[in-house]
Amino acid sequence: MITGVVPDRVLFLMLDGLGDRPSRELGLMTPLQAARKVALDLIASEGMTGLLDPYAPGVPVGSDTGHLSILGYDPKVYYTGRGPLEALGAGIDLKPGDVAFRVNMATVDDDWNLLDRRAGRISTGEARELARAVAELAERFDSTLSFEFHSTVEHRGVLVIRGEKASSSVTDVDPHREGVRVQMPRPTDGSESARVTAQELTRFLLRAKEVLDRHPLNVARRQRGLNPANALLPRGAGVMPKLPSLRERYGVRSVVIAGGALYRGVCRAAGMDVRLVPTATGTLNTDLRAKFEAAVESLRSYELVFLHIKGTDTASHDLNPSAKRDFIERIDRELHRHLDSILSGSVICVTGDHTTSSLDGRHHGDPVPLAVAGEGVRRDDVAKFDELSCSRGSVGRVRGLDLMNVLMDLIGRVEMYGE
Amino acid sequence: MITGVVPDRVLFLMLDGLGDRPSRELGLMTPLQAARKVALDLIASEGMTGLLDPYAPGVPVGSDTGHLSILGYDPKVYYTGRGPLEALGAGIDLKPGDVAFRVNMATVDDDWNLLDRRAGRISTGEARELARAVAELAERFDSTLSFEFHSTVEHRGVLVIRGEKASSSVTDVDPHREGVRVQMPRPTDGSESARVTAQELTRFLLRAKEVLDRHPLNVARRQRGLNPANALLPRGAGVMPKLPSLRERYGVRSVVIAGGALYRGVCRAAGMDVRLVPTATGTLNTDLRAKFEAAVESLRSYELVFLHIKGTDTASHDLNPSAKRDFIERIDRELHRHLDSILSGSVICVTGDHTTSSLDGRHHGDPVPLAVAGEGVRRDDVAKFDELSCSRGSVGRVRGLDLMNVLMDLIGRVEMYGE
Repeated sequence: MITGVVPDRVLFLMLDGLGDRPSRELGLMTPLQAARKVALDLIASEGMTGLLDPYAPGVPVGSDTGHLSILGYDPKVYYTGRGPLEALGAGIDLKPGDVAFRVNMATVDDDWNLLDRRAGRISTGEARELARAVAELAERFDSTLSFEFHSTVEHRGVLVIRGEKASSSVTDVDPHREGVRVQMPRPTDGSESARVTAQELTRFLLRAKEVLDRHPLNVARRQRGLNPANALLPRGAGVMPKLPSLRERYGVRSVVIAGGALYRGVCRAAGMDVRLVPTATGTLNTDLRAKFEAAVESLRSYELVFLHIKGTDTASHDLNPSAKRDFIERIDRELHRHLDSILSGSVICVTGDHTTSSLDGRHHGDPVPLAVAGEGVRRDDVAKFDELSCSRGSVGRVRGLDLMNVLMDLIGRVEMYGE
Repeated sequence: MITGVVPDRVLFLMLDGLGDRPSRELGLMTPLQAARKVALDLIASEGMTGLLDPYAPGVPVGSDTGHLSILGYDPKVYYTGRGPLEALGAGIDLKPGDVAFRVNMATVDDDWNLLDRRAGRISTGEARELARAVAELAERFDSTLSFEFHSTVEHRGVLVIRGEKASSSVTDVDPHREGVRVQMPRPTDGSESARVTAQELTRFLLRAKEVLDRHPLNVARRQRGLNPANALLPRGAGVMPKLPSLRERYGVRSVVIAGGALYRGVCRAAGMDVRLVPTATGTLNTDLRAKFEAAVESLRSYELVFLHIKGTDTASHDLNPSAKRDFIERIDRELHRHLDSILSGSVICVTGDHTTSSLDGRHHGDPVPLAVAGEGVRRDDVAKFDELSCSRGSVGRVRGLDLMNVLMDLIGRVEMYGE
């Protein structure tokens, strides 16, 4: 099945939240153990397997820190909060130094008591219309800082602050729970820029509430008995970091295919191109066929194709190990259609960015299975791709930060250290 | 086979470039997997096995950085370029602060255009005679710095610069390819010592060309239509670092047996004695029998004997996995003659300094197999010494920097940390 062509490119199949814990629903197996899968097991049996600690044993990581780490960027150095990654994922062009926040469009009363963090689960379309009004405000807002706001999915959005005095050293405005009074941002250090940012952001949020309160769309929502989206609640301030790109590090052209904004954001920060698949939704109903086809096609022009699939994580968050098993089987069928073609000239790597337990719906620090196959890749005698089988593999247990070196070295892209 | 005597010494058998990738030529096995071997498998089956990352997963190391790391010296701290290691290996007595270069004796025209980086593959004997003339020049050369030149093998040599103003912050003179004009050294920082070194080295190289151009041996080579070795091309400047010796670290007497100058150099930097085996060539035709006899004999007077064998690496660089397999079988036969005697009182460790792939002839970051046996060493159920079998061993996957502690602790030479 592996064809003798020395591989010069890598398909990285990232199954979000892939690792799991055994559940009684699946007879004390994990979803991966319970799934009937042909392609994933073939990769395990023709290649090398192991366990991956996305960051460190027992440390649950977010999708952001997990992805940074697995792409080879130490989150201790490069993770500056989720805001910048979310903003990048939303297609906003961030420069190093820009400050970005995640934002909820929420419902507050006249005294800023938080009534609904999700503004009656407002639709993406309505949120976008309201966001346009905020964007107009931002445009004419008189300040030493400049503001940019975009809504993303439903009540979610991102706010970017630029300027010499922009700082991420301000408190979250979002109190993270309803029924309490929203506090305007306060500086968290003694710098002039933190003081200015807190002050100007407060002015901006107060003005935005005026604009949103009287927006016809919110007036209509009130009339229909729906919560208006009349306040912006920023959180997770972070300064856009400067990541050395994968091209600088390994001399490769790389591309990401992902439904979720965050994953595109992390990958863009690493200098990857983004290939959009319009029918990729970033959830269980995504168009797996179109995503795999785009990935295989991308292997023609890129040395690294990063294909991200989110549904595995979603099923765990829904406490549904059977749905996760079924989704893995769907992935396996789509992958199987292309496996021969992928292995002619490419290395394939399959793993996850963290464990999400279907028992409690939370991220956990259990390692995730890893399988890598391709011409020239060592073959161990593990023949199944799951958390337990891979623990007996020849790779042993490695850390996320080392994985990109391992993969790039398989295609001869890691510079020798010494002579 | 292991005799009950508590071991107090270690034989470290270092097989250069031992790790490999599976090749079709060997039925998708690595040379180690394909080799019929008795002694190496006995060591695996009577001892503990694992995988060793010479430096870090996926990072290809040179023989220099790989050896430093495996001897317990972090290359990030102690690696200052190959020049000093090469000079040490050539038997030059370097003191911390001395600056050393690797040198090619090459052919240039009157305008210093590089015609032949290897001077018509000049023999070691002829090169040595020319080197004597350069050494005489060095002796009478009037400068604030002092110069020392030695030829080593064929066109290769080393140049050492000493003095208060000696600096390694100068550019390579060797342009690394033929057909271009050689540039004299330039300082790479703003220091006075870099300026002086560049200036004095330039003067020395110009004078050396005059001496070499008119040397009778080169005159004769020209008459025979051969390229004269009329220029010295230094590269890889490095300052000799101060390594704490193995004796300081572990209180052991140690000795190296190696055909290649570089390996002797690294080991001398670690304070090891050098035992010369005149018939050791550092390549596939080396005198394995004499090397093993010298190693076993050295165990009488040293607590650590480091036996380096290069041919495994050479075969991989030649893209010849079958030759590598055959050479491993030869090593195994010679080792087998002494194994009983070694294991009476010694611990034996076998591993490599890096993976060299017989598919592309390059160093790679795949881990290398490791086996350690001797009285008191834990025994796992791995019975074969190769990349895959050892991956199931009880040692797991460890890093080069930790290995020397593991070995020295087996003979009770590592000081307790804490009380």
